Parts: sequence; C-alpha cells; structure tokens
Amino acid sequence: MTDARAAALEIGERLSQAPSDRLIDVAFSRELGAQTRLREAVGWVDLAHTLSLVETRVIPRAAARKLVAALLELQAGPAPLTPENGDLYTNREAWLTERTPAVGWLGAGRARREAITTAFHLTLCSTLCECAMALITTLDALADLSARHSASLMPDYTYLQAAQPTTFGHYVQTFAWPILRDLDRLAALYARVDLCPAGLGACNGSTLPQDRHGLARRLGFSAPVRHARDAMWQADLGMEACSVAVAAIINLDRLAEDLMIFASAEFGFVRLADRHARASKIMPQKRNPFALVFVRATANRLIGVQAGVSAAGRTPSGQMDNRLFVYDAAPDCVMAVGEAAALFAEVLRGLEFDAARAREALADRAVCASDLAEALTGQGGLDYRRAHGVVGQLVTQLEMDGRRLAQARVDDLAAIMRRAEAPVEAGALSDILTAALDPARCVAARTDHGGAAASEVKAMAAELTAAAQTRKTHFFALQDRRRRAIAALLAETSDFISGGA
Amino acid sequence: MTDARAAALEIGERLSQAPSDRLIDVAFSRELGAQTRLREAVGWVDLAHTLSLVETRVIPRAAARKLVAALLELQAGPAPLTPENGDLYTNREAWLTERTPAVGWLGAGRARREAITTAFHLTLCSTLCECAMALITTLDALADLSARHSASLMPDYTYLQAAQPTTFGHYVQTFAWPILRDLDRLAALYARVDLCPAGLGACNGSTLPQDRHGLARRLGFSAPVRHARDAMWQADLGMEACSVAVAAIINLDRLAEDLMIFASAEFGFVRLADRHARASKIMPQKRNPFALVFVRATANRLIGVQAGVSAAGRTPSGQMDNRLFVYDAAPDCVMAVGEAAALFAEVLRGLEFDAARAREALADRAVCASDLAEALTGQGGLDYRRAHGVVGQLVTQLEMDGRRLAQARVDDLAAIMRRAEAPVEAGALSDILTAALDPARCVAARTDHGGAAASEVKAMAAELTAAAQTRKTHFFALQDRRRRAIAALLAETSDFISGGA
Amino acid sequence: MTDARAAALEIGERLSQAPSDRLIDVAFSRELGAQTRLREAVGWVDLAHTLSLVETRVIPRAAARKLVAALLELQAGPAPLTPENGDLYTNREAWLTERTPAVGWLGAGRARREAITTAFHLTLCSTLCECAMALITTLDALADLSARHSASLMPDYTYLQAAQPTTFGHYVQTFAWPILRDLDRLAALYARVDLCPAGLGACNGSTLPQDRHGLARRLGFSAPVRHARDAMWQADLGMEACSVAVAAIINLDRLAEDLMIFASAEFGFVRLADRHARASKIMPQKRNPFALVFVRATANRLIGVQAGVSAAGRTPSGQMDNRLFVYDAAPDCVMAVGEAAALFAEVLRGLEFDAARAREALADRAVCASDLAEALTGQGGLDYRRAHGVVGQLVTQLEMDGRRLAQARVDDLAAIMRRAEAPVEAGALSDILTAALDPARCVAARTDHGGAAASEVKAMAAELTAAAQTRKTHFFALQDRRRRAIAALLAETSDFISGGA
Amino acid sequence: MTDARAAALEIGERLSQAPSDRLIDVAFSRELGAQTRLREAVGWVDLAHTLSLVETRVIPRAAARKLVAALLELQAGPAPLTPENGDLYTNREAWLTERTPAVGWLGAGRARREAITTAFHLTLCSTLCECAMALITTLDALADLSARHSASLMPDYTYLQAAQPTTFGHYVQTFAWPILRDLDRLAALYARVDLCPAGLGACNGSTLPQDRHGLARRLGFSAPVRHARDAMWQADLGMEACSVAVAAIINLDRLAEDLMIFASAEFGFVRLADRHARASKIMPQKRNPFALVFVRATANRLIGVQAGVSAAGRTPSGQMDNRLFVYDAAPDCVMAVGEAAALFAEVLRGLEFDAARAREALADRAVCASDLAEALTGQGGLDYRRAHGVVGQLVTQLEMDGRRLAQARVDDLAAIMRRAEAPVEAGALSDILTAALDPARCVAARTDHGGAAASEVKAMAAELTAAAQTRKTHFFALQDRRRRAIAALLAETSDFISGGA
Repeated sequence: MTDARAAALEIGERLSQAPSDRLIDVAFSRELGAQTRLREAVGWVDLAHTLSLVETRVIPRAAARKLVAALLELQAGPAPLTPENGDLYTNREAWLTERTPAVGWLGAGRARREAITTAFHLTLCSTLCECAMALITTLDALADLSARHSASLMPDYTYLQAAQPTTFGHYVQTFAWPILRDLDRLAALYARVDLCPAGLGACNGSTLPQDRHGLARRLGFSAPVRHARDAMWQADLGMEACSVAVAAIINLDRLAEDLMIFASAEFGFVRLADRHARASKIMPQKRNPFALVFVRATANRLIGVQAGVSAAGRTPSGQMDNRLFVYDAAPDCVMAVGEAAALFAEVLRGLEFDAARAREALADRAVCASDLAEALTGQGGLDYRRAHGVVGQLVTQLEMDGRRLAQARVDDLAAIMRRAEAPVEAGALSDILTAALDPARCVAARTDHGGAAASEVKAMAAELTAAAQTRKTHFFALQDRRRRAIAALLAETSDFISGGA
Repeated sequence: MTDARAAALEIGERLSQAPSDRLIDVAFSRELGAQTRLREAVGWVDLAHTLSLVETRVIPRAAARKLVAALLELQAGPAPLTPENGDLYTNREAWLTERTPAVGWLGAGRARREAITTAFHLTLCSTLCECAMALITTLDALADLSARHSASLMPDYTYLQAAQPTTFGHYVQTFAWPILRDLDRLAALYARVDLCPAGLGACNGSTLPQDRHGLARRLGFSAPVRHARDAMWQADLGMEACSVAVAAIINLDRLAEDLMIFASAEFGFVRLADRHARASKIMPQKRNPFALVFVRATANRLIGVQAGVSAAGRTPSGQMDNRLFVYDAAPDCVMAVGEAAALFAEVLRGLEFDAARAREALADRAVCASDLAEALTGQGGLDYRRAHGVVGQLVTQLEMDGRRLAQARVDDLAAIMRRAEAPVEAGALSDILTAALDPARCVAARTDHGGAAASEVKAMAAELTAAAQTRKTHFFALQDRRRRAIAALLAETSDFISGGA
Repeated sequence: MTDARAAALEIGERLSQAPSDRLIDVAFSRELGAQTRLREAVGWVDLAHTLSLVETRVIPRAAARKLVAALLELQAGPAPLTPENGDLYTNREAWLTERTPAVGWLGAGRARREAITTAFHLTLCSTLCECAMALITTLDALADLSARHSASLMPDYTYLQAAQPTTFGHYVQTFAWPILRDLDRLAALYARVDLCPAGLGACNGSTLPQDRHGLARRLGFSAPVRHARDAMWQADLGMEACSVAVAAIINLDRLAEDLMIFASAEFGFVRLADRHARASKIMPQKRNPFALVFVRATANRLIGVQAGVSAAGRTPSGQMDNRLFVYDAAPDCVMAVGEAAALFAEVLRGLEFDAARAREALADRAVCASDLAEALTGQGGLDYRRAHGVVGQLVTQLEMDGRRLAQARVDDLAAIMRRAEAPVEAGALSDILTAALDPARCVAARTDHGGAAASEVKAMAAELTAAAQTRKTHFFALQDRRRRAIAALLAETSDFISGGA
Repeated sequence: MTDARAAALEIGERLSQAPSDRLIDVAFSRELGAQTRLREAVGWVDLAHTLSLVETRVIPRAAARKLVAALLELQAGPAPLTPENGDLYTNREAWLTERTPAVGWLGAGRARREAITTAFHLTLCSTLCECAMALITTLDALADLSARHSASLMPDYTYLQAAQPTTFGHYVQTFAWPILRDLDRLAALYARVDLCPAGLGACNGSTLPQDRHGLARRLGFSAPVRHARDAMWQADLGMEACSVAVAAIINLDRLAEDLMIFASAEFGFVRLADRHARASKIMPQKRNPFALVFVRATANRLIGVQAGVSAAGRTPSGQMDNRLFVYDAAPDCVMAVGEAAALFAEVLRGLEFDAARAREALADRAVCASDLAEALTGQGGLDYRRAHGVVGQLVTQLEMDGRRLAQARVDDLAAIMRRAEAPVEAGALSDILTAALDPARCVAARTDHGGAAASEVKAMAAELTAAAQTRKTHFFALQDRRRRAIAALLAETSDFISGGA
C-alpha cells in the first residue's frame, strides 16, 4: 500500500487495517463506477473550495497556490481511477498527495460528501439543459411534421380499432404538447438543483469560516441551499430527476410504439429512413425499426431506475447509500432521455408518411360512424342514444351482408330509422349520409378549440414552434450562465496561481 | 338482462352478446372498483355537459330539463354500482334510463372517457389541495418543534454513527425544507391538472357544436387543455401525481425511520404519545410506534404504485388501459400522502424530546472530534489532513486505553502533536481542547448560512412558518375557486330546471 | 370507548390513551382493509390454537369450550370490522369479549402476528391453487387452439415486421410453454408457503408448552417452519408470490398485446367474441377488445405491486410494516393472475381465426426471403452471407420496380447471382424459387425439434395437454388435502364442544 | 465505412444507408455496452454452431476449418468492440470478415438473436452457480456464528423495541434459513436456464438441417428448449433471475440494516473489522460500516432493475427490446448478489459481538414482561388477558415511579394481582418473579421446535451446515459439468482444425 493511498484512506490513523480485497473489488469498485461521471465537476468544486478558503483566511496563500496548481494539472489530464484508492474523492486525494503536501488543506471544513454532492448538482444541471435542448429539437420536428401533414387524412385509433377520421398532423401533435409539460418540469427541477450545497461542513455548518454565497457564485449556482443538513441529503432531487425523465421518455415511447405499428406492412402508414433501421442477419427482406425499439427499451430501463432511486431514498436520514448509485443513476436517466430525444428528432425528420396507405385505411368508412350518428342528432334531431343505436344496427347489418359502411345506401339507413321510429326525410338522409361518409369533410368540421381541422392544427403547430423557441432561449441562458461562471472560475484560478489575486 | 342495462352496454345494437359472466366478475368489477372515487365529480361533469349543449343548441331545452332533474336526483342519493352494468359511466346511464328517456341526450358529442377523465381531473385537483394542506400542517409542526428545540443538543449521525454535535431543532428542519419543495411540485402539478379535457368528442373534436371554454369555466378549471387528443390521453399527469406523492412520503418516511430509532430504549431521545402507539397482544411492556411504521409501509406501497403507473403509461397511444387503474391509483397516492402527513403532524405535536438522554449521547465527546481537528487547523495552523490525523490517532489511542475523547488530556494531545511534528504551545492546546470538547460551544459556532447555531435555526424556523402561510393562502385560493365554481354550477342547474335559464 | 374495545387495545393497562381519531381513520383503517381477505382463515387458526393449547394443558377445558363456541359463532356470521377496534385480530377479540370471558385465553402463548401470519399462509396457499387451476385452463385452451390450427398459415413477426412463414398453431404455443414454467414456479412456491408458522410465541418460542407439529397438522400444512423467528418474518414469500404472479401475467399479456394488434382491421387475423368485447358510447362501429386490454392493465398494476412489496421487505428485521400491506398484496396479485387467466381461457375458446386474412398477409412472399436464401445455401452451395446478399438485393431491386418477392422471376434472381459470381444453373434456380416462395412448403420443412411443421406442432400440443393434466392432478391433491384438514378441524371442534374430545 | 463493416451491417444490400451517427452513438453504443458480458460465451456458441453444421453437412469442411481457426483467434485475444460495427454479433462478424471469407458461413441457419441468446443462457448459468456458491459461504458463516453464540444473550426486537430475551445465535439464524430458500430458487431457475435455445433458425425452425440436441450437448446444456419460438423469446427467465436476486439481496440487507443499528454506539452490540469499515474525511472519530451500507445500496438498485426488467417483458411478443438491456441486467443482478454475499460472509467472519453490551440491554428486564405474564398463566392459572393486564399495569406503575421491571418487588406484583382479583400465593409469586426476570432462564425454557434454547439453536446450526454442504455439492456438479463441456468443445475444435475430426 502506497503512503498516498494510506493517507487518503486514513489507514494507520483511525483504521488499523486496509480495506479488504473484497471490499475493494465489490464495494469500492461499484461506487467508483457510479462517480466517474462527476469527474470534471468535482475538480471545479475543489478549485472553488480552495479559493474560497483562501479568502476566508483558512488556507494560507502559499499552500493554496501549490494546491491549485496540482488541481489544475489533475483537471487537464485526469488521473486513472482505481478502486484500490477508494472513491472518486480519495482517488483524487491520493493522486494529489504524490504531487504536493499542500493537499493537506483540501479537506478543510468539508466532508467528501459535500464535494461529491456539489459536483452532482453541477453535473445534473448541465445534463438537464442538454436533455431540454434535445427535447426541444423533437418538439420542433413534431411541429414541422404536424404543419406539413395538417391535411393528411388517416384514422384515429382507440384500442387499435379505427375510431374517427383525423389527420397525421393532428395525431402527431399528441406527442408535442406533453413535451411542453416535460420542459416545464425540467425547468422547475433545474431551479431546485441550481442551488449550491457547498460550504456546510459535515452537514450542519463548520467552525472554520465559510462563504456559502461566494461558493455558490463561483460555481455558477443561483444561491446556496438554505439549510445545511437538507443540502447534504436532499433525496427528492434524484427522485424528481428520474420521474421527470420517465415522464418524458414515456411520451416519446408512446409515439415510438405507434410508429412501430404504423410501420408494419399491414398498416403501412410510415417508413423509417434506412439510416434508422437495422437489417436482419438471417432474413434478407427485413428493415427493422431499430431506433424505435431502442426508445422503448430505454423507457423500460428508466422505469426501473426510477423505482430503484425511490427505494434508495427510503431509509433513515444521514445514510450515504441514498446517494451511492444515485450520483450516476439520476444524470444517466436524464441523459438517456436527451439521447433518445435527439435520435427521435432525427427519425421524425427522416420519416416518410404514406398518404395513400393511410387513406386506404379509411376506405371502408367505419371511422365515419360517429360522424353519421352526430349528423342524425345535429340535423335529424334524434337524441344521441337513438342515433348511435341506428348507426350501430346499420354497421352490424352491413357486416352481416358482407358490406362496409362505405357501401351503405340511403335505403339501408331509412329502413332502420323507420324501425326505430325516427323518421327523417329521404332527401335529408341522403345529404347526411353523403356528408358523413366523407372523411375530409368530417375532419374539416372539427374546427373547435384543439380539434382536427387543418386551420386549427396549423394554428397549434405555430404555437408549438413559438413555445419551443421560448424554451430554447430559457435553457440556453441557463447553460450560458453556468459556462460563464466556470470560465470565470478558471480565469480566477489562473490569476491566483500567477500571483494576481 | 334489463333493457336499461342492454341499452347502456349497447347489447343488441353493435354487440350481439351480453358480456360474459367472467368478463363482468373480473374485468368490469375491477374497473368499476377503480372508478368509485370519481362518482361525485362525474355528476358535475354530466351537469356541465348538459347545460353547455343546451347553450350550443344541441340538446333541446325540454329534454335537458328532464335529464338535469334525473342527474340531480342521482347526485343526491347515488345509486348502487354493479359491475353487471359496466363501468361508472354505464352504471349511471342504466340508472338514468330507468327514470327518463331524456338520458338519450347524455352521450351527445362525447365519449365516456371524456366524462370520466374530466371527473378524474376534478378529483385529482381537490385531492392535491387536501394533500398540500396536510403537508402544510406537518411543515408548521416541524417549524414549531424546531424553534422550540433550537438549543436542545444531540448528536448528528451519518451511517448511524455519531458525527458532530447539533440540536434537535436543526435536525428536524432537515424534513421541513423538502416539504417546501413538495409543495412547489404539488402547485406546479395542480396547474397542469387544472385544465379541462371536456368538449372534445371522441378525441379530436366533434361535429356537434361544443363550448370548451364554457365547460372549463363551469367546472372551475383555469382553461381547456389545448389539444384535444392530448387532452384525452395525457399519461404524464398520473405519473407526475405518483412521483410527487412518492417524493413527499419518502421525506416523511425518512423522519419516521429516524424517530423509530430515536424512540428505541437504546437511544431514548423521543417518545410518542400513547395515542399514536400500539400495544402488543403478547408483550405487556410494549408501546410500539405504530404511526411511524405506518408511514414507512405507505412509502413502500406508493413506490410500487408509482412503478405500476409508469409501466401503464408505456403503451401505444389511444389505449384505455393506460388509465384503467390510474383513475384510482393517482388520487389514492396523493390522498395517502395527505393522510400520512396529517397523522405525522399530530405525532410531532405529541412528541416528547428527552433532552437529558440526547445529551448523554454526547457524553463521550466522540462527536467533537472534527471540531477539535478544525480548531487545530484554525487556531493551531495545521493543515486539515495533519489535524485530522492527529485527532484520529488520539481517538484510537484513547480507545486502546479504554478511554473516550471526553477524557483526553492536554498531554495526550501534545504527545501526538509532537510525533506529528506539529508543535502548538501547551496553553493554547489546553484552550483548544476545552473549547472543542464543549458541544454547546461547537454548535454555537455554526453561525454560517444554514448552520446549527440557535439564532440561525430560529431564523430559518421563522422563514418556514412564513413560507407555510404563503402556501396555505395559495392552496386555499385554489380550493375556494373550485368550490365556488361547483356551487355556481349547481345554482345554474337549479335555475335551469326551475325554468329560469 | 367500550370495555371490549379498551381491553382489545390494551387501553388503561399499558397505554394511557386511546388511539387518536386520525390514527384510527388513517392507519388502522388502511391496515384493516388489507386484512379483510384473511378473515375466514384466521378463524381456523384460532380454533386450532385453542384445541392445541387444551391438549398441552395450557387452556382449561371448560374455558376452552366456551371460547370455541364463540369462535364458531363468529366464523358462522362474521362480525362487521371497524378500524375503531384496531386490526383484524383485535376486532375479533373485541367481538368475543362481549360474548365470553373465556376470550382471555385466546392470546396465550402467541402474538397477534402469529395468528395473522398463519392465516396469510393458509390464504396464500389456497389462492395459489386457484391461480394454478386457472392457468391450467388457459394452457388447455392454448393446446387445443394450437392443435386445431397446426396448419393455419400466417407470418411470424419480429419487430412487427413479417419474418418467416409459420402457423397460428405454432405461434400460440409460444405462450403455452411459459405457463408450464409458471406452474412449476407456483408449485415450488406452494411448497414453501405450505409450512406452518404457528406455535412460536412472540418470535423465538414460548415458555408455555406448544405443539408446533400438531398445529401444522390440524391446519393442513405439510410441516412447521423450522426456525421460529424466520417463521414470523419471512419476507421472501410475499416477494416470491408477486414475482411468480408478474411472470405469469406478463406471459398472458404478451399474447394479449399480440392479439390486440392481430384484431385490428389492418391485420384482421382474429376476432374476439362479442361477449369479450365492449362497445363505444360514442362510436357506433366499435367492438373494442376490452378483455385483452384488461389483461395489460393488470400486468402493469402487478409490476407495481411487485416493486412495492420488494421495497417493503427492505427494512431492518422485526418490523411489521414489512407485512402490513403484503398480507393483501401478495394473495391479491396471485388472485388477479388467476382471474385474468380464467378470462383469457374463455377468450381463447371464443376466438375466431381468419385464415384467409392471415394467408393474405403472406401474399407478397416477403416472409419467404430467408427460405430462399437458405435454399441458395443448401442447394446452391452459396455461403449464407452471399445467399443473404443475393436475396437482399433481389428484394430491394423488386421494391424499386414496384414489385414484391412474390413476383420475382428466375431472370431477376439469375442476374443478381451472376453479378455476385454465384452461378447456379437456371433450372435449379427455378425449382429453388418455386419451392422457397411457397409458404406451406417452407413451414412443412421445419420438422426439427420444436419447429413449425404441423406434425411437430401436434406432437407438442399433445405434450402440453398431458403436462396440463399432470399439473391439474398435483394442484388438486394440494387443494384436497387442505380442505380435508379444515373439515377435520371443524369436526374435531364440534366433537370438542359437544364434550366428545 | 470499411467493407467488413458494410457487410456486417448489410449496407448496400438491404439497406441503402449506413446507420446515422446518432443511431450509432446512442442506440448501438448502449446496446453493445449491454452485451459485453456475453463476449466469451458467444465465441463458444459460434464454435458449436459451426461444428454442428459441419456434421449436418451444411458448412463445407474446408471453409469450416478456416472459420473455426479465425474464431479461435478471436476467442484468444478478443477484438475491441465499437458501436460503429453494430452489436456484439456484427462486431465479431466485421472482425472475422477481415480475416477469412469463410465468415460467410457463420450466419447459416440462425439469427443473430439465437447466438446472443444462447450466450446469455450460458453466461447466466455460470453466474447463477457463482452466486449460489457465494450465498453458501454466507450461510456457512451464519451457521458458525450462530453455533458460537448459541448462548450469547441479547434482546429480540420488534419495531426496534425490546421484545423478549433471545440469543445472538438464534437471532442470526433468521437470515440463514431464507438463504436455503434462495438456493432452492436458484437451483430451480438454473434448471430452466440450463436448456439450449440454439438451432432454431429465425424462431420456428430452419430449412437447413440442424441438430438441436447436439448443440445442447456440445455447450453443456441439459437439453434443448422444447419449442423454438418460446426458446427465442423467453421473457420469464430474465424476470425470474432478477426476482431471485432481489429476494436474496433483501435477506442480506435485512441483516445488514440490523447490524448498522447494532453497530451504533447507542446499541453497541457489534463491531465490524476495520477492513470492512471506512473512515470519514472530515470526522476523525468515525469508522463507518461501509460494507453494510453497500449491501443496502445494492438491494435498492436491484429492486429497480427488477421493475425495469418486468416492464421490458411487457410488450407484444417477437420484440427484441425485451432483451436489449436484459442480456446485461439479469446476469448483473445475480452477480451483484454473489458479490454482496461474498463480502457479507467476510464481514460476518470479522464481526465482533460485544456480549457485555448486549446483556446490558437486558438489564432493565423489560424484555421479560411476557415471560412473567406467561408464568402467571402457566403457573398462576390466570388467563392470558388477565396476566398480560397485570404485567402491563406493573410496568406502567413502575415507570411512573421511575423504576424498571428489574426492580419490581413481589409486593408490587401482589398488589396489582389483588386488585385484579387474581390471588396467587406470595411464595409462588416470588418464585415466578425471580424466574421470569432471569433472561437466561427465559431463553433456556424455549426448547420447542425452532425456539431459542441453546440446544435447539445448535441443532439448527448443524442442520444448516449440512444443508450448505448438500447445496455446495449440487452447484459444484453443475459448474463442473458445464466446464467439462466447454473443455470438450474446445478439444473437439482443436481436433477439427488439425484435421482430426
């Protein structure tokens, strides 16, 4: 065991034994694996911590210069991590110990958990922004697709049974509006993560002077977390990150699952670009919609991660296993959604919609049945139960005759109306039937707020595009503020070691 | 099979067979069980729907009067629900069918799912407010407890090992601050649920004239959901309700789990009132902290419900099984948190803190070790690694001698300092040791932002109380607006059947 | 508060206060709701306990007679349960207290948890048998359907893209074989649940003489659980019940999800009987496959319950919240699978397979592509990569020409083969092409172990039927043994109060 | 794009475009990451597949020799995997393509999924054995600990309130018996995984001659999976692997959670070896029980993985996303349990039990209350309700007097008995009190089946040790059979390329 390692792990001081090989191979190794993602951010935290403690006169300036120099070297070419040296924090400490005795000042006034948790906040913040940006590209793609297909007819389905006529443009917006809610959830979560835990000692303050507001400012946070012990152990943020991620991926998944069905030869409504498909190694005819399947696989994986992170929160407080795997799981969840959204945006841009096949699915006019019933109510004066009953009988009778609703004749309808004692004049019936069985007219009539009429779809598409732009501006500003803060921190650091500060 | 039932289930029209007994006993029965909670709200929805369609001249005024009268009768003394009559909607329809033929107008221009989903929004809104109110009582109780015990010393724990001295007042606030975040999440979710799905036909608009803004207004919503198909199938809201609930209950649980340990005879810090405990049937000495255990059981149950609701969302769109059990699960989750919070607030009000036992846990002064190390850094000028090493060796050596840190003498410390080549003058060392081993002084020194010093704890408690008040006002206004809207709807209804409108 | 209630809840003895109203309304109420299912079984446990303690001379014979008489009265017409009286155990005790002072002997030598847990084992055992029996009916239905359709051609799908020709008979067996594994898991779990916890005192034995083997025998268990504390707290059994249930429901769900797609108009392979469908209230043409959707909803619900029960087990030991909701959740999970399986068996019996539509889906012969490639390998001597490449190019080229594989001519194939420098003589090519594009021949060639050839499908169907019969015999014997034991217990009880024993 | 890569991904044949960069970076990359674990096993599968098809005369002997040689080269020094080359299968194919044109035969008669799934079975089998072996070491450690402490007194707890006197030996067995059930579950699952999917074509057989029994034998499986399509898509096995893992880790966790509490200074019953603890970076006095905390973190992680794998199974059939992440998640779950068990066994071997502190926790004799009540029943003739009431009042009254049960005098008891009209003669009362308040006597009296008496604990410990040995033999035989099969396969392979076969 090297001295640096012994020092980092406190062997020979508090602990008489080095960690067992198995503790290293099993526990340290898995823990370290879950911290790799925090590597860059923890360097920034260490720098800010050091500068702050120089300012509060805890760390002597000369030692701080050496420490900062070593930290910058570590940041430039990160040292290999090994579970033998414990977690990310003690790995860094062991590496620094071999370079400068000034490392002794690194731990002044804080627990390793503070450093790691602050890095976690930083990392999660930047991941949240990237995820939001990717979702915005999907939103844009959906708004464009919707505008382009505001008049492309297709059946709407419930239970995968054709329900009513709609357009592909109205349909795809189903998945755009939830993205706005996802973005609102991401923004709200961001505001909660954008608070700095640093400067709190072990978890309730320190007897060494600290500057929690200065630390927050240096690292680009909007403010410190108010209560020190809360700051150290916030279990809700990891859970919320997973929950926001799961809601977002499930919205994407729902579209992906529909598209998988619509891409079947039997439906044939859409076709993915070859660059988003995958060939089979045995079946030469196959173009499998791999990108879509991947979205569903990710959704399921994240449902699990969410459950695991919730379960992890459920312990007494002050327990570090709450966070052990969450340091990785929470940003990974959010990143996985961002990845999937970016891929999905591309898939949507490359998607071909086969308008002819979609129209074909309307050919039997089954989807017009409720429009017919509504016309019997609206124009024929029947209450809806009776109108529904009449059309229901009509459909059933046609089916028994081997006909479809498209082949319904006024006579068929009139006969049933008579039996139902719901007489409507034959000329009127004919007009009603003709109009109701024209899917384009059915759709055009849906001009209500949020309905499928092309004008409404276009209006909503424009609203979506505008909303996407607003969100883009918002998240860009957040990213930008954080990047500037890190740049300023690095500049301050350079000044400091060159003796300027 | 009664005629009313056949009509409600469309037997003899579209379907040639009644549902099988097993479909009724298994599927209809479970579905109906998951809708019972929506019973009252669906009545309001039916009333608003009817009045709205009178206004848009779909339903003739005379028929509407009879329908409204029957609906009010049903609202007054709700009919028994039976799976033989299908779901909540068709149960109501069957009941109404036996009273008036005007029931035929009830289904004009909407799917049953619209009625049920709108009722779900209404129910979830009111449950969210109740939950928020209950969490605010817990928050208040925590703020009070915290203020009262801002100087009651106890050890802070990490890994259930005594860490540093703190106060019960600082400690309990750990669970108050997350409640503010819970309330923010609840409020944000409320705003998303407070949008009205009604008036959208099957899912993309209707050919009968509808007034979606009027429906929203009549039912007390802030606006209609923008996009009709999104409105029908929003999978994210149920998930978000469960996620918000899980985060809230896990925060309560963490305190409950701590208190279970603190209530053990071995710790002995707190004692629950007898009215929140339960006796054992076999062990006469037992007073089991049943209320706390119940909170943990609920947390685990909700973790599961969350996973199930997430999994349910993960299907193609337009699938009603997304919602089948979610109609119940989402408000039940939220309500369960409200119940647990109300109970917990009571438990906290009845909790006795045993200051003597808590102080006893500080007696060995192990918790003062890092304060001693910090003093060696702050006053002795040692870097923290060396200071930490010195104290680590001191603790270990005392342990080997069968002594505790409380029994450390200046000589012990000086000897180790000498070996560590970290000479501090003996008088100074003595002052350092005396000060560092006084937990009250250690705590009093933590005056930083969010720290454990009594003044800071009191300031934060006052902030919490103020924040609780703000949140109370917010949620009260939401509840009030909704109640007024329902009252206005009922008044409008009365006017209408008495011919006034 | 009644005396009986006070006695049952130990108010005035160990506890100075009655439970608070909120504890009753929230915690006791939810707990009691989760125990209702155990009502009958706990009565048997009380009877066995009483008789056993008479035998070990703990309970005097005269008092026991009165107690048993009251217990039998309670069993005959169960008293209403109210959370005011606590849990199921103390509700029963309060009821008995009003009838006989002999109730004082009921609690001798055992905790309430022993009574409830033993009832849980009994209830779970009988639910497991019912679930197994229902799964066996599904298995039988699948085996029959498979045999009937051993030659009904259809495409096999992967990624919902047609893959290779198969038969409906081979396809549906995909869901039969996992049921055999489900039944094996159920049987293994049954053997673990079929051990009796009773007779163990609080959790590590009793100082009053007990007869654990006698208790097990009287209640129809195969033996006592070996270790007393393990017996009281086995967390794995509830988890295993949920896991076995989830695996079983997910298998059913996978078929249900396929059938939902196959029942769409676009696929049109299957049609559910009207008695398993549901009409739409707005769309008169709809016959929604409600029974299938219900299976999926149940699958998702159970995925959640499983996660919640796993999370509940994850606490320190000796914590009753491990079991609080599990008493209900575990048997409910298993019962829900039994219900779904029974419904599914009925759906399968009523299912119509449309052989013509299924054949139509093979018409373009895309599914024959790999058979063609295999023929080029097997008969043409090409390595598979080249054969695959040739057919891939053929399919792509035909697609560009607006043709399908069905329309491929020998020339098309020969040209590509030439370019690929893979010359096969034209006559041979023609034979290969003709044979490979005949789906019936393709299927008939799959005679390997487990393949799609009709003979193999029929052989496997016969194996399934035989295996179903074996399992039926096994579970029937388990049910029967348990029923006989309860009958014998009740007979012994009658003898006892009539003074016979 | 290299030719090899294009060939492996079928670009230019079926697909006109290479996969997009994002598809590679997102989807292929995550998929490949989840297959790395299968690397070695898929090599064996390829070898067996090749040899088998030589035997069935599909692959010409000369080409097969080249292919096998290249496969062996790949097995010896595995090529780097890159998402640019797709999944594990196509990565291997691209690598082989650069070495020999004989690679063209590799895909004959099987889908890539068959190769990967067979490798998954092999890998899972070996992981299951390793996990079982590790659990057996924990079982052994628990049995030894139990035997060693069969007379070491401590309180048993429920709700973390002292319940009754027990021994550490009886207590720790609580966690040994479930391991036997875990091992039974592992063995049953092993038998289900120990069936070979190979030789089934795309999923319902192949037109090229296959030898499924030969493949199974060559790879060391007990038999082929019976039904070809079931073989390809078994969703239950991954779920079952996770469920078995979760049950096992939760049992370990329950002990870990208890030990964390027992290791607190306030309880002080146990102490972990330094090699299983971790120091704090800020608090010099801390020895945190890191190994225990890690077990809990793992339990929570696996609860999540289980939920994700269950959710993944819940799709239509024939969907590869069912398996995408499960290939990794299932064996990782099982391996994580094995790791935790191996670590835990070590922790238990290094654990110090502080008998003095444990006895101290019995000092107030509260735990003897039910023994006293039982004595009043058994020797005093009181029914248990009355006995319980008497002791309950005694405890409460002593508490009010500031006394403990240990300080109860015969007079105290006699007075309450008089009030309760339950006269027992004073001499008898004195004997009863003395005996009941002696925890050692209380424990010694629990000689019933499974009780805490030392003789019973020792007998059970011996049973556990014997059972551990039996299980070890069983799993060793399974491991051994599989290793021999792989060795034989490699020998056959060598023979084959050297021309012997």
